[in-house]
Amino acid sequence: MASDENIMPRPLRGIIVPMVTPLLGRDTLDVPGLERLIEHILAGGVNGLFVLGTTGEAPGLSYALRFELIERVCAQVQKRVPILVGITDTSFVESVKMAHKAKEAGADAVVLALPYYFPAGQPELLEYLEHLVPELPLPLLLYNMPSCNGQVFQPETVQAAVEIEGIVGLKDSSADMVYFHQIHSLLKDRTDFSLLIGHEELLADAVLLGAQGGVCGGANIVPKLYVDLYNAVCSGDLAAVELLHKKVIQISTTIYKVGKYESSYLKGLKCALSCMGICSDFLAEPFHCFRDAERDIIHRYIKELKITEYS
Amino acid sequence: MASDENIMPRPLRGIIVPMVTPLLGRDTLDVPGLERLIEHILAGGVNGLFVLGTTGEAPGLSYALRFELIERVCAQVQKRVPILVGITDTSFVESVKMAHKAKEAGADAVVLALPYYFPAGQPELLEYLEHLVPELPLPLLLYNMPSCNGQVFQPETVQAAVEIEGIVGLKDSSADMVYFHQIHSLLKDRTDFSLLIGHEELLADAVLLGAQGGVCGGANIVPKLYVDLYNAVCSGDLAAVELLHKKVIQISTTIYKVGKYESSYLKGLKCALSCMGICSDFLAEPFHCFRDAERDIIHRYIKELKITEYS
Amino acid sequence: MASDENIMPRPLRGIIVPMVTPLLGRDTLDVPGLERLIEHILAGGVNGLFVLGTTGEAPGLSYALRFELIERVCAQVQKRVPILVGITDTSFVESVKMAHKAKEAGADAVVLALPYYFPAGQPELLEYLEHLVPELPLPLLLYNMPSCNGQVFQPETVQAAVEIEGIVGLKDSSADMVYFHQIHSLLKDRTDFSLLIGHEELLADAVLLGAQGGVCGGANIVPKLYVDLYNAVCSGDLAAVELLHKKVIQISTTIYKVGKYESSYLKGLKCALSCMGICSDFLAEPFHCFRDAERDIIHRYIKELKITEYS
Amino acid sequence: MASDENIMPRPLRGIIVPMVTPLLGRDTLDVPGLERLIEHILAGGVNGLFVLGTTGEAPGLSYALRFELIERVCAQVQKRVPILVGITDTSFVESVKMAHKAKEAGADAVVLALPYYFPAGQPELLEYLEHLVPELPLPLLLYNMPSCNGQVFQPETVQAAVEIEGIVGLKDSSADMVYFHQIHSLLKDRTDFSLLIGHEELLADAVLLGAQGGVCGGANIVPKLYVDLYNAVCSGDLAAVELLHKKVIQISTTIYKVGKYESSYLKGLKCALSCMGICSDFLAEPFHCFRDAERDIIHRYIKELKITEYS
Repeated sequence: MASDENIMPRPLRGIIVPMVTPLLGRDTLDVPGLERLIEHILAGGVNGLFVLGTTGEAPGLSYALRFELIERVCAQVQKRVPILVGITDTSFVESVKMAHKAKEAGADAVVLALPYYFPAGQPELLEYLEHLVPELPLPLLLYNMPSCNGQVFQPETVQAAVEIEGIVGLKDSSADMVYFHQIHSLLKDRTDFSLLIGHEELLADAVLLGAQGGVCGGANIVPKLYVDLYNAVCSGDLAAVELLHKKVIQISTTIYKVGKYESSYLKGLKCALSCMGICSDFLAEPFHCFRDAERDIIHRYIKELKITEYS
Repeated sequence: MASDENIMPRPLRGIIVPMVTPLLGRDTLDVPGLERLIEHILAGGVNGLFVLGTTGEAPGLSYALRFELIERVCAQVQKRVPILVGITDTSFVESVKMAHKAKEAGADAVVLALPYYFPAGQPELLEYLEHLVPELPLPLLLYNMPSCNGQVFQPETVQAAVEIEGIVGLKDSSADMVYFHQIHSLLKDRTDFSLLIGHEELLADAVLLGAQGGVCGGANIVPKLYVDLYNAVCSGDLAAVELLHKKVIQISTTIYKVGKYESSYLKGLKCALSCMGICSDFLAEPFHCFRDAERDIIHRYIKELKITEYS
Repeated sequence: MASDENIMPRPLRGIIVPMVTPLLGRDTLDVPGLERLIEHILAGGVNGLFVLGTTGEAPGLSYALRFELIERVCAQVQKRVPILVGITDTSFVESVKMAHKAKEAGADAVVLALPYYFPAGQPELLEYLEHLVPELPLPLLLYNMPSCNGQVFQPETVQAAVEIEGIVGLKDSSADMVYFHQIHSLLKDRTDFSLLIGHEELLADAVLLGAQGGVCGGANIVPKLYVDLYNAVCSGDLAAVELLHKKVIQISTTIYKVGKYESSYLKGLKCALSCMGICSDFLAEPFHCFRDAERDIIHRYIKELKITEYS
Repeated sequence: MASDENIMPRPLRGIIVPMVTPLLGRDTLDVPGLERLIEHILAGGVNGLFVLGTTGEAPGLSYALRFELIERVCAQVQKRVPILVGITDTSFVESVKMAHKAKEAGADAVVLALPYYFPAGQPELLEYLEHLVPELPLPLLLYNMPSCNGQVFQPETVQAAVEIEGIVGLKDSSADMVYFHQIHSLLKDRTDFSLLIGHEELLADAVLLGAQGGVCGGANIVPKLYVDLYNAVCSGDLAAVELLHKKVIQISTTIYKVGKYESSYLKGLKCALSCMGICSDFLAEPFHCFRDAERDIIHRYIKELKITEYS
């Protein structure tokens, strides 16, 4: 059976999409929207799908809904691209449980940010990984996300952590390129390791200077743009890089900046997908979808940036 | 049947104990330890038990274990004091589910910090509370805990939130007494509202200047100390306040400061309880109990401070 | 001659006023306003005058103006109360120079926060103090002000620093009472040492639990209020403490909260003094005085709180 | 006379060196060291010299020493490259005074970070610039340095500020490339404006994606490396970029990381210059030069990285 085969390449390269979770209500998936979204993303030529990340609002969803999502996504993707499942949790036991659900459903890897809530020391975090990774039935990508989980992941700790058997990559969402270059330098002999950048605004920087790829939220709405930028960098076409990077920054400074809270990124993404007829823009608590005024602005941006024509 | 009666006073006053969760392993309660701990705490004359708070390591526990804990505590306490249950979660749906478990088990109130992980704006947080509180089957105490959940709870938002039917108190763990005095001033006409202080080091300050009581982690090991301090303040005995406050600060600057990470508070508390023969010192991941060197220091502090003689 | 006598008591106790600096323009003192302000403050029965602190906008003033201010204040006060001069600077050499100016003018002590701009380690800060203090011609009060200078002053560093000959006190403006109680506990054997609280909202807390006094910005406008609160605490009159503390919080939540930036504290203080006819409300760059709309609100608060009748 | 001619190009491009300030003591320049340092830097083919920045320890120096430094540097450079002078100060009046000193000595531009110490709102900071810039006798480069001055410089404020007549560039030391790309996008129509990156680790990223150049501390020790990297980017030689960027990261993760405080950057730079026989490694308070153990490590790094052979 297809789901027994693990199609995760080593290293994983290219554009991985942190998929939004289409919702009809607080505890209800938008199933047709999910199906359309997956096909829309895969049509862009991306290299992987990452469900239940920050963009997927994982912490805001019930466990039952998370399980349902994993199953539906795996069933629909049918191994066309690798599926990565976020298992970040404050509870070790729940993280392991989620990883087993992912394995059973046919996912190819899991992604884990450090446990949040109570601040931990670096040796404590390393020990946590040493305890956790052997319990996981799938390869693991670490996820550095200090702005959300409040845990610093120092280079020395990363260096020790990547030696743990089973860790195959790191997604860095620190937005700190000094840190990123330092991590890249530490990993220079690991040819099988995947260092991915977590902010699409930094995709060009990171891949130009050594990253294997990026996890780009905007690829939910316009996947081909990020694939094209990745390819332009790989082929050394700096003129194309400049143009495509400029487009990425335009999306980031328009669609993600409507509304005044940090959640404007999530709201903008889901609103754009709704305007494009792909899926519902319902958000998990404590957030809500944009009202008409903001939606009109998003609509205008989609036209101005010719989002729907990009294919 | 006893469990149908809600014994939560309005306002709740005095010393509420944020109970540690005795564990034998990553997903196993220390049941005899839990029973001893509850009796030890109640013998100190406290006014309430708060399970599944930060001190109770709630976010680090599996849901199954949390449910088991609630049931065991309610069954043993048998309405001798009100039981408050922490329902803080990143997921709205899971918070509501936990509240219903608490109600079914016979608890008297729930306690909720703002949802963590993704930063939210103040109006978003207020709306979240407006949506959540009507779904709860028990009265709610808000819990301001910015150091752990990363969410600011501005005075204007508190002022609007406390108007929501069903919110009966606020535990402030900001450690910011300027903020606390401002909140107290906003609540001056709410005679049925309970403003509690979340740092035992500030118990004297807060009750001297208007708080209804405190949620004191140290009351796990020496409950009578905090009860005596609370009573000394209530009776205006400033000489006794000075002595007892000094003792509270001694505990805080010794038992909570062994080891170099922020978790030294949790580790110190559990280690002291273990030294005193009350319960196991196993901690939920990503933390671990003190090794022998630190344990010896805790042992010495217990003797020097005459913790076990205080009764 | 009077100015040779140092009238600084050991320990310094009571209410010290961090005097605002009355200005007519960017580099011009409001000399008549300064004279009225000093007499207004001294009439309230305060225990000391602290010039060139944060409330005095010291960092925003030219050195020439700072020197002129010191001379004028010393000349007018004529040893009626001790004068403390802020010498905080990013430059060691300029701090020492300012201290000598203070000594020459007849001041009684200097006050120093840790040097700001570039972050320093705790041993570096301790060594800095070990180098600086012997160069000072006057006794020194340390000034913990992390929100402005960005330097943490850990309890261990404070404990070592207070052993340096010449350091006679510490003003804590961390607004962190857990820290404050810890520092107080470390200093318990230093009967000649003055631990002062830097937020007037915490004056009652701090003095009730061991501080020698407070540095209260509001004492620029209504000095007697803080003197009365200090005396109420000293005499153990908890009913009076409650009333006066409530008044302090009222000022803090009204006059200091007009306008939306953090500078609303400075603007509110100077605007109130201007409304009361005491001195100009010109502020040093990058701030400006309130416009009419905000001034009207301040005027109303002065009336509602009966500020001018409090004497 | 040479000093009357302003040789600042519009836009300024390439590698600008934030020169360290060679000191023999707390208030004494290392004059021969300064001369050697200037010639060493200019031999590397750099495009400008920036004195009295963060790397130049400006805030830690007395004003008299700062004035002397400006004069000596201008006299020696003799218009071979443009000289930029840091005038950042907490006091508006002192900033203006420093700018006039710079003009008189023959400097070509001034550089200003937002005033530090007391936090200000964005409109306050904009107004400050509107008041200050007209008083300056030289063109101004803004300097975004949130880690040291604690002031955020929001894109909207930058956008308004760059319209002020006299502002010709922005040095961004936020280390936040998402921000940097956004600022770059806002400035896209300003062909005469110079956007410079303030972290040498980000030089390749920034110039590849649109920056005019960088302000590189490492160019004090090995100026040609940064010039070569800049040129490699300009000529689109990605293989050379990769090699040179790697070398830059090696310096950053070795020479700047000896010692455990943030000042290790400053100490490492000065120690390396001392090891290379260029100038003294004395640091302004509150810092001190490395002791023998750290110096030995720096020595080894210089050899391993073949710093002195790079020419």
